[in-house]
Amino acid sequence: MTPVLHFSHDEFERRLRKTRLAMERLGIDALIVSDPSNMAWLTGYDGWSFYVHQAVLVGDDGEPLWLGRQQDRAGALRTCHMRPDRIIGYPELYVQSTDHHPMEFLADRLAAFGWGHRRVGVELDNYWFTAKAYNVLCRHLPGVHWIDATGLVNWQRAVKSPRELDYMRKAARLTERMHGRIREIAEPGVRKCDLAAEIYETGLRYDPTLGIGGDYPAIVPLMPSGKDAAAPHLTWTDEPLRPGEGIFFEIAGVHKRYHCPMSRTLYLGSPPKAIREAEAAVLEGLEAAVSAARAGNRCEDIAASLHGVFRNHGIQKDGRSGYPIGLSYPPDWGERTMSIRPGDRTVLEENMTFHIMPAIWAETWGLEITESIVIGAEGGECLAHVDRPLVVKD
Amino acid sequence: MTPVLHFSHDEFERRLRKTRLAMERLGIDALIVSDPSNMAWLTGYDGWSFYVHQAVLVGDDGEPLWLGRQQDRAGALRTCHMRPDRIIGYPELYVQSTDHHPMEFLADRLAAFGWGHRRVGVELDNYWFTAKAYNVLCRHLPGVHWIDATGLVNWQRAVKSPRELDYMRKAARLTERMHGRIREIAEPGVRKCDLAAEIYETGLRYDPTLGIGGDYPAIVPLMPSGKDAAAPHLTWTDEPLRPGEGIFFEIAGVHKRYHCPMSRTLYLGSPPKAIREAEAAVLEGLEAAVSAARAGNRCEDIAASLHGVFRNHGIQKDGRSGYPIGLSYPPDWGERTMSIRPGDRTVLEENMTFHIMPAIWAETWGLEITESIVIGAEGGECLAHVDRPLVVKD
Repeated sequence: MTPVLHFSHDEFERRLRKTRLAMERLGIDALIVSDPSNMAWLTGYDGWSFYVHQAVLVGDDGEPLWLGRQQDRAGALRTCHMRPDRIIGYPELYVQSTDHHPMEFLADRLAAFGWGHRRVGVELDNYWFTAKAYNVLCRHLPGVHWIDATGLVNWQRAVKSPRELDYMRKAARLTERMHGRIREIAEPGVRKCDLAAEIYETGLRYDPTLGIGGDYPAIVPLMPSGKDAAAPHLTWTDEPLRPGEGIFFEIAGVHKRYHCPMSRTLYLGSPPKAIREAEAAVLEGLEAAVSAARAGNRCEDIAASLHGVFRNHGIQKDGRSGYPIGLSYPPDWGERTMSIRPGDRTVLEENMTFHIMPAIWAETWGLEITESIVIGAEGGECLAHVDRPLVVKD
Repeated sequence: MTPVLHFSHDEFERRLRKTRLAMERLGIDALIVSDPSNMAWLTGYDGWSFYVHQAVLVGDDGEPLWLGRQQDRAGALRTCHMRPDRIIGYPELYVQSTDHHPMEFLADRLAAFGWGHRRVGVELDNYWFTAKAYNVLCRHLPGVHWIDATGLVNWQRAVKSPRELDYMRKAARLTERMHGRIREIAEPGVRKCDLAAEIYETGLRYDPTLGIGGDYPAIVPLMPSGKDAAAPHLTWTDEPLRPGEGIFFEIAGVHKRYHCPMSRTLYLGSPPKAIREAEAAVLEGLEAAVSAARAGNRCEDIAASLHGVFRNHGIQKDGRSGYPIGLSYPPDWGERTMSIRPGDRTVLEENMTFHIMPAIWAETWGLEITESIVIGAEGGECLAHVDRPLVVKD
């Protein structure tokens, strides 16, 4: 079986080398990778199987190992770049059982590979590495020196390759199409579930001009309206949009698991002064942030540019205003490494990619106008091009 | 602010009482619930915020506490049944930071509530309770006696209330609509991304006759075709369907987070003998399984009925053939308690709900024909009604 790969073997090799260098710096002999985004980045593995325990193992040489449920081995053979003997399935009796845990199987393999007394990295603070998984590993491999490698692979993903940027630019075309459709159809009386239906339909359908269709986003469309827009992470209901309401749409076009998130806000009626003032601050802040998004600057410099503008407009904001993006699986399209916030002194490099998010959630309304950008030598390059101002539908 | 609740206060009270009884049996004084489905079931909380640490705390009396990111408190106030002072937000500095962990904040609250030297349950083997989260809690609360409460709340969810069944029956209407649309449009040349677009559009759009629209599924549509159908958890690509291919669609209609999953298989052309034989076994097996799905029987009895038929057809199957379903958030629409497999001796009760899944994944093809059912006194009641046989499009 020849797997369908979205990247060259050379690119997977480079990723593996970068990862091994980072392992070396932390004195890690072997790494257990549980995050599906990290697994995909290292091996190409793609499938909705992360609801059971699975992992990619990276030793100090050779191809990575994929280890998952036996029935998912078929998917791994079709999507991973490694030889079939590097793709190992565990039997069904380990699945969602109280008697057997998949990490017992993994521990046996680690011991067989001679890692039972070495320094092994684990993604301690990752959704897909549970407390129980760690306890089982510790109990079965008492000789291992465990090292917290949370984010180790995520950090290697920060600077995007030309192929990755190409995928994100394609995703951006889908994002544009989705926001275009939203502004076409959103008006009082239109139900939110129907908007969600249109957003998915527009985000997924094949576009003959682009030569691509879309993939599922790591976060479903967020689209709270009116007073509910004070809550950033509500999804949708069956309720219709109402006159006199604002509504933001936080969505992403996705191509081969690469995301281009973007938020825009609509107002159905004549926007109140407070929202217009927030809009002015956000639009100016976004310009400042994008222009500060250049190689050599630090994450906190982008935050400072933005917060400076906000202060001039009398707005105090101290939360995060952005995060890195790229290849992702649910529940988050962020890479969970850097943050655009005061105190994050990470130096920006060319071809890092961020979702810049100067959102404002007030007590009774919310405003989101955001951009996904690529860090450049002179400033940020916006991936998608959609008019920024509040879309007013009277 | 008056929250929008999908269940009565009485029903939330009953859920809490059941949960406390289960806690008592395990000698648990306080419970930390991290699973979003369990959080929603106990409190009503709904929002795509499970990509950061959050929890519901259940003590031995009073309302539960919701604890999450400060910005998500707004969503909790709008969806939870508790008083606002039972809804607590942690500051932004704890978010995806290497210096501060949300579990430090939670540990402080637990100590303040006097739980610092009591028996506290945690969902040790849950996606949303990481190894790091547990380590931080253990370090900050050395006096706590920790108890593994994985699945404790999930088990309380097994028997559905009349309101829950009503939501699942509504979800079933959406499932029927989605499968109806699939068989209308799937044919050689149609791209899978376009099928995915139509599945979402049909699953979400408001139906005036039903009076509902749809919600997002906890698993995206799975629809591998041809030889790829040997891999159960592949999603979709931009490729067109081809003549001479089989393709299964594992999808779910969703209403207020309640799921009705169902798989059907199409064949584009004249199905080969092996697939026709598998179909015969699955159709007969499904009948046997549904009729064994009656109160008083055990999970393994359903598996035995099914596997008996399979053996008569010369098919050996030992994996799981089903699991409980209901309220769910990604990554799984299963409840992760019982399994329809040999050795699971759980006694079935009326109004438990299962996805019965006698799937066959061979080396070069796959067949999925499944039913979501309610356990009844005389046998299973199928929630959705869609013709079962292979849909053949010549």
